[in-house]
Amino acid sequence: MTNINETHDQNLKSWVESANDPDTDFPIQNLPVCKFVENGEARIGVVIGDYLLDFEGYFNATLSEGFEKMSIELASNSQVRNQMQKDLGKSASKETQNLIKENFLIDRNKVEFTSPFKTADYTDFYCSIYHATNVGKLFRPDNPLMPNYKWIPIGYHGRASSIIPSGQDIKRPKGQNRSDAEKPPIYIPSKALDYEMEVGFYVSKGNELGETIDIKDAEDHIFGLSLVNDWSARDIQGWEYQPLGPFLGKSFATTVSPFVVTMEALAPFRVPAFKREEGDPKPLPYLQDDGNETHGGIDINLDVYITTKKMREMDLEPHLLSRSNLKDLYWTIGQMLTHHASNGCNLQVGDLMATGTVSGKEDSERGCLLEITRRGAEPVELPSGETRKFLEDYDEIIMKGFCEKEGFRRIGFGECRGMVLPADE
Amino acid sequence: MTNINETHDQNLKSWVESANDPDTDFPIQNLPVCKFVENGEARIGVVIGDYLLDFEGYFNATLSEGFEKMSIELASNSQVRNQMQKDLGKSASKETQNLIKENFLIDRNKVEFTSPFKTADYTDFYCSIYHATNVGKLFRPDNPLMPNYKWIPIGYHGRASSIIPSGQDIKRPKGQNRSDAEKPPIYIPSKALDYEMEVGFYVSKGNELGETIDIKDAEDHIFGLSLVNDWSARDIQGWEYQPLGPFLGKSFATTVSPFVVTMEALAPFRVPAFKREEGDPKPLPYLQDDGNETHGGIDINLDVYITTKKMREMDLEPHLLSRSNLKDLYWTIGQMLTHHASNGCNLQVGDLMATGTVSGKEDSERGCLLEITRRGAEPVELPSGETRKFLEDYDEIIMKGFCEKEGFRRIGFGECRGMVLPADE
Repeated sequence: MTNINETHDQNLKSWVESANDPDTDFPIQNLPVCKFVENGEARIGVVIGDYLLDFEGYFNATLSEGFEKMSIELASNSQVRNQMQKDLGKSASKETQNLIKENFLIDRNKVEFTSPFKTADYTDFYCSIYHATNVGKLFRPDNPLMPNYKWIPIGYHGRASSIIPSGQDIKRPKGQNRSDAEKPPIYIPSKALDYEMEVGFYVSKGNELGETIDIKDAEDHIFGLSLVNDWSARDIQGWEYQPLGPFLGKSFATTVSPFVVTMEALAPFRVPAFKREEGDPKPLPYLQDDGNETHGGIDINLDVYITTKKMREMDLEPHLLSRSNLKDLYWTIGQMLTHHASNGCNLQVGDLMATGTVSGKEDSERGCLLEITRRGAEPVELPSGETRKFLEDYDEIIMKGFCEKEGFRRIGFGECRGMVLPADE
Repeated sequence: MTNINETHDQNLKSWVESANDPDTDFPIQNLPVCKFVENGEARIGVVIGDYLLDFEGYFNATLSEGFEKMSIELASNSQVRNQMQKDLGKSASKETQNLIKENFLIDRNKVEFTSPFKTADYTDFYCSIYHATNVGKLFRPDNPLMPNYKWIPIGYHGRASSIIPSGQDIKRPKGQNRSDAEKPPIYIPSKALDYEMEVGFYVSKGNELGETIDIKDAEDHIFGLSLVNDWSARDIQGWEYQPLGPFLGKSFATTVSPFVVTMEALAPFRVPAFKREEGDPKPLPYLQDDGNETHGGIDINLDVYITTKKMREMDLEPHLLSRSNLKDLYWTIGQMLTHHASNGCNLQVGDLMATGTVSGKEDSERGCLLEITRRGAEPVELPSGETRKFLEDYDEIIMKGFCEKEGFRRIGFGECRGMVLPADE
């Protein structure tokens, strides 16, 4: 692990001027990793201001000695990050600057991005106690939280094939709808399409089948974090989910943001894990980590914006639907990962785990429309005069994530964006 | 599609003599496909009697003209199957026989097998109404079947990484156990380890994200069938599964049999789909297929055997725990596949779908110990004098599948086998 005071020194500037803009998500202290597409080929990139470093080219030209063979994991290696900070820093030699500028620097707005990993298995957790309580109240007012909630980081297997990169449109799914319990279900386009504001993390080191992962080592298996929109068709989900959980209500699309912010980039924003209420059980020993009391959580602001067709026609800015924070999760990402492998399940490099909807205590912190509109009962008002119970065609959801702290540069996640297209006729 | 009368003619014999044994699972009418390991490399094989055809070698030497490039899908192609039947048949020329014998025929007992496909997404259904009812009764005696059961082929996403080939031992998983509701849960080795007798099918043709698959085309997307043991830790599952479904109770291991029996090999054994009871709803139109009335089902006997350490020491034969039949599923495999893609979820080549535990009406047809022992209340007696509520260490489960019909050769699936090893200390 690097020294935070050095690598996060706010006075470090880059010769890539856009990285010095105080509002950028991508100062030289961040350096998130991504895959971009060039000539039909996916390549590893590292983001700096408005540019991308062609990581593989840069690495081969400057760094390769003493390292194992090329992989995306290298881009999050401490030593490699240090070197990138030096080479992209103001005090880099003119020669280095020119080498990079001429060969390995790409305008970020001119390329397309793809999912950062080929994910074989995707797991979605349910780790915001506020979300679980809000949703539980809608369905079981007297008993919103299941008895297992405070013992287990609840999760389920998601669908990996339908993970798509930010910017790709999603088609409204069809499915069985039984909103009228007196009549047979009908197969129609979803009438209750929703987003879920989540954070995802990628596995950078697996475990063998039958082995477990000690809670103290959990974060060594995590490459970094990005934003996830776990699109949900509430009507399909509500009718299908018993007794085996969500299936087609989720598997039509999951959008991921392209830039993976490494654990090192997030180091200054670590905070104590969620403070459990008096009377809440302590986690079982296999999920207990002393470190949780000092830095189990991460302080990341998570904003959700909407634009509608009408809003765009009226030239209105995207409307903020919620701002929640990752630090409000009941379980840490380390606990999720350790729990996942606690039965010997083999995790693999590139696996994606997501936190579940991140909601907070306040009304302004509810991370999906199901919570915001109380299942459609209290439609949200938009600056265009429109209202929304759930998403309508051509609505676009834009998620943003960022960390801010006195004395440190802002570390951002960029955007996770997707527009709803109409269902097929 | 080939002419059943020709390709399933019971008088067709092979020059591979073991294929003519009336008890073999693998006569020349079957020709299931597999992947075997040679010098650390996985290769495509086709089973004939006690031998394997090295498919790639054979294909390149004899067949390649006019075909697209090598893939496992080719081994199930009608034309290719016809040619294999000719070349492996008694009336093949001596030259052909020698060519194959000397170059492409491998003793099946001398190689190891691996999972036939690299499965990215694994989905497990719950399509036996007898299983769903038996299990439902244990938990909700008055209301065993959920209201959605007769409308939806219920399924959930499984874990793909822990799919293992037949013969690989499984380690008893640890997990949270709360059998005593008065006390906190404890993290211990599962005390209620079970198997589930299932049938799996592999996707041979995918669909694009956002597209659906017409029920009439569903079987064109299916490569073939094999046996699946969906190992289940009932205590872990029971405590964790609400509200998002099975997770760590399943994800520690799923065993698949190596040989994929093609849809053509199963053609003579097609039967009408399950006859719904008077008063049961008709499937919604997107799940209706006229063909279901003549051949929606498949008549496959599914046997589960157990051996224990003591039984092996006493030299006792494996004990038959159940015999169920695939034709008793409430939903057809075509309906499962079409439903899966009905929300636009993209299926991919190699995806594995499993039926869920296949149980029948009779007590002798219950496909898992949970049902057989009524959740441990009625232990099963073994010929060694032992009893079992659930699986104990060193118990081995052996699943077999086979089709039999007057006038046709037996078509078998081989074995799906796995032994339980103790949990780590």
